Amino acid sequence: MSMTADAVPTSASPARTPVSPSPSGAARSAPDRLLAVLAAFDHAHPALSLTDISRRAGLTLTTAHRLVGALTEWGALERDASGVYHVGLRLWEVAALAPRGLALRQIALPYLEDLYEATHENVQLAVRDGDEVVYIEWLSGRSAVGVHIRVGARWPLHATGVGLALLAHAEPESQEAYCETPLAVFTPYTIGEGARLRRVLAEVRRTGVAVSARQVTDDALSVAAPVRGQDGSVVAAVSVVVPQLSAQVPVLTPAVRVAARGISRALGWQP
Amino acid sequence: MSMTADAVPTSASPARTPVSPSPSGAARSAPDRLLAVLAAFDHAHPALSLTDISRRAGLTLTTAHRLVGALTEWGALERDASGVYHVGLRLWEVAALAPRGLALRQIALPYLEDLYEATHENVQLAVRDGDEVVYIEWLSGRSAVGVHIRVGARWPLHATGVGLALLAHAEPESQEAYCETPLAVFTPYTIGEGARLRRVLAEVRRTGVAVSARQVTDDALSVAAPVRGQDGSVVAAVSVVVPQLSAQVPVLTPAVRVAARGISRALGWQP
Repeated sequence: MSMTADAVPTSASPARTPVSPSPSGAARSAPDRLLAVLAAFDHAHPALSLTDISRRAGLTLTTAHRLVGALTEWGALERDASGVYHVGLRLWEVAALAPRGLALRQIALPYLEDLYEATHENVQLAVRDGDEVVYIEWLSGRSAVGVHIRVGARWPLHATGVGLALLAHAEPESQEAYCETPLAVFTPYTIGEGARLRRVLAEVRRTGVAVSARQVTDDALSVAAPVRGQDGSVVAAVSVVVPQLSAQVPVLTPAVRVAARGISRALGWQP
Repeated sequence: MSMTADAVPTSASPARTPVSPSPSGAARSAPDRLLAVLAAFDHAHPALSLTDISRRAGLTLTTAHRLVGALTEWGALERDASGVYHVGLRLWEVAALAPRGLALRQIALPYLEDLYEATHENVQLAVRDGDEVVYIEWLSGRSAVGVHIRVGARWPLHATGVGLALLAHAEPESQEAYCETPLAVFTPYTIGEGARLRRVLAEVRRTGVAVSARQVTDDALSVAAPVRGQDGSVVAAVSVVVPQLSAQVPVLTPAVRVAARGISRALGWQP
C-alpha cells in the first residue's frame, strides 16, 4: 500500500491514501468508481492487469472492464502488447496543467538547475498537501549517490527540511494543529514532540531557512527555504540534500535562499 | 480550441482534440461525462469557473456541479479562493506514473541536462501520439531566447526533427500512411509532399539523425536522434533546437546522438 518505498532512503514510509477497501461498487457513485480505477495505480503498482485493477479498485470485473475501456479510449490509460494497463499520455497532458504540479515545476526548473550547478548536490522542490510534503521535482547528477526521492513521493512535514519550511509559514492554527498530532519518528534525531517542533518552527521563521539533520535517515541533512507566490504566501519549498557528515550548512544556505527567491520572483512575488 | 498557441513560435498551430460539441450529457456514458470535465482544461484554459466547465464539457450546470464536486473531493481538481477550478495535485501524482510521460522524462533528464550543458541550446524530449509529437520535456537556460516549446505541446511529425526521427523508425505501413495524408505547411521550407518526405525519412535512417531546417519557423533548425527501448524499438526522440543562421549541424549531431544513446541504455537497450 505504501507509495514511498523508494522515497527518502528508509523503509519507514508513511501510509498513503488507501485504496478503497469496499468489495462492491454498487453503493458508490459513478465518478467514485472511475476515480477508483485511476487510484489503483501507484508507484508500487504502475502496471496492472484488468483483474488487478478490479481487485484494487474494489469493482466487479464487468464494471472494471467497462470503465477501463472508457479510460483507455480517452487516453487516460494505455494497454501494452502484453495486455497490461499503464497510465496514459493524455492524462499526463491534462495533469501538466496542475498549477502545483508541472506548471510550478516548469517555472522553477531553471532555478533548480542553477542550484544544482552551484552545489552538485540533490536538489528538490516540494509543496504541501495536508500533513505531508509532495516532491514536485528533484535533480541529481547521473553519478549522484545516496538519497533517492522520486517525483510524487510524500513525507511528513516535520521530518524534512522542505516540510519544516512549509509548516513554519503556514497559518498559526494549522501549525498548532500539526504540533498537537502524534509525530512519526524515523531516526533518533526525528522531532517527536510538539514542544520541540514549535521551537524549531520559530527558528525557521527567524533564520529564513529550515535545516533537517538526520531526521529522515541517519546520514542525510537538508537545507530548505520557502518559495512565495504573488500574494506573498508560501506556496512551495526548495532544498538541497547532502550527506550529513560532509554537510556545510553555512555554504549551502545562501545558495538555497537565492534559488528560492528566484523562483518566488518568477512566480510574481515582490519583496 | 488550439492548445498549442504558445508552442513552437508560429501562429499556425495544428488543431487539438476538440472539446465535445454535444450540448447535452444525456446520451453520454458516465465515464465520458467525467472525462469531458477533465478535457475542458487545456493550455489555453488552465483555470475555469463551473459555468465555463459546464459549457466546454457540454454538460448541464447541475451535472457539471456534481462531477466537479466529485473530482474536487478526490483531488483531481482544486478550487482556489476566487472559486475558480484548476487541475489538482492528486491527478498530477497519478499522471506521474505514465511510462511515456513523467516516468520516461525522469529517466531521460540527466542525459538531457548533459546535452544542455554541452550545447547550452534548447533541448527537447518527445514521443509520438498518432500523427503528432508530444513534447515530454524541454530544457533551456533562463536567458534562452527564441523557441518556446512547452511540455505537453504537440506538432505534426513531418515538420519537426523529433517527429522525423520518430516517423523514420515507425512501422513501414505507418510511414506510408502518413506520407499519403495531406502535409500541413508552416514555412516555404516545410516538407509538403509525400515523395519528398519519403526521401527525407530514408536519409534519417541512413544517417541516424533527423535535421529539420526552417520547417516550423523561418529561423530555427533542429537536430534529433531516436531513443530506443529495451526491445530496440524507437520510443522517443531527443533534439536540440538552435537559430538556423548560426547552426553547426556537424557539431550538434554527435552530442545529440550520444544523449539519445545514453537514454536508450538507461531504458535497457543494448546495442
